[in-house]
Amino acid sequence: MAFHIKPEIRILGIDDSALISDDILIVGAFFRGGQWLDGVMRSSIRRDGMDATERIAKMVTSSKHYGQIKVIMLDGVTYGGFNPVDIVSLYEGTEIPVIVIMREVPDLEKIKDALSNLPDPEERSRIILRAGAITRVVSKDLLNPIFIQCAGIDTEKAGEVVRLSSTRGNVPEPLRVAHMIATGIICGESRGKA
Amino acid sequence: MAFHIKPEIRILGIDDSALISDDILIVGAFFRGGQWLDGVMRSSIRRDGMDATERIAKMVTSSKHYGQIKVIMLDGVTYGGFNPVDIVSLYEGTEIPVIVIMREVPDLEKIKDALSNLPDPEERSRIILRAGAITRVVSKDLLNPIFIQCAGIDTEKAGEVVRLSSTRGNVPEPLRVAHMIATGIICGESRGKA
Repeated sequence: MAFHIKPEIRILGIDDSALISDDILIVGAFFRGGQWLDGVMRSSIRRDGMDATERIAKMVTSSKHYGQIKVIMLDGVTYGGFNPVDIVSLYEGTEIPVIVIMREVPDLEKIKDALSNLPDPEERSRIILRAGAITRVVSKDLLNPIFIQCAGIDTEKAGEVVRLSSTRGNVPEPLRVAHMIATGIICGESRGKA
Repeated sequence: MAFHIKPEIRILGIDDSALISDDILIVGAFFRGGQWLDGVMRSSIRRDGMDATERIAKMVTSSKHYGQIKVIMLDGVTYGGFNPVDIVSLYEGTEIPVIVIMREVPDLEKIKDALSNLPDPEERSRIILRAGAITRVVSKDLLNPIFIQCAGIDTEKAGEVVRLSSTRGNVPEPLRVAHMIATGIICGESRGKA
């Protein structure tokens, strides 16, 4: 596919809030590249539920910015506890490429253990594995690589988008800001890192 | 007083959300100059209540960023309907200078009419007038001046802070972003202008 990366490429970063109720706030920060917040949207998903993919897709497609968003960025593939995002379905449903950002390679054995206490562990596991190969990427800090998974975009282009949007640190600005908004609104003041 | 303006001066922009309940969300966007969102905080005030000054002061002084905030920016002096902010008290209570931003000179006759339907109209009116002289300032757009009121900072320095932080448009970035967060969280998607 043709995927041209401009410095002001519109990116939607999505993060969730702390687990303090059964309805978990998710926040979308709509950015121009790594520079300029141009919109904020929110939705909610069930804690440890199975609705994250559908709810995120709906938040994206019903947004007034939906024609402009060129990349969706996720902070891992589970939101609201272990509510898994099927990034292939999210890409197919929205027609927007998806890049998943992780600070560390996830420990799949640990995740499988945790899933065994929840309904539908095999289905959750299948969705998590569907995110595919994990690629190491140098974002801003050579000594602190991050890890990505992609749907609808090749890893080389995805790495370019990550570097271009990581203006303030090692994590792309749309995710850094979505994290601050979600934790700030739910906890009273932002904390931790995306 | 000595008030040195660095490009990365820490500014807290505060805005409120739409009036859809009796508890109104207020959001603080903690910025480095006009560039970089460094924190998000929130509190709530009563719609048409009298607690805005106290609630905002408490949000500011209980923040982990409280030693760093050099300027508080407000979008007008009434929040959550006609809940007035006493900017002199806010300055005295927090020891942080306050700059009020307005797109237009407020119509005091209209405001007095609206206040007459609420409890304590004289007290509200007194607090609103206490914000003092309104000064016309050119922010970014020569043809679209904005208007400011100040406490704890002279108008010339306040104008400098306004210009320095208006990186994306005519309204300082801390207020533009606080507005997007507050409306995005309450309405589902950000809308309108600070």
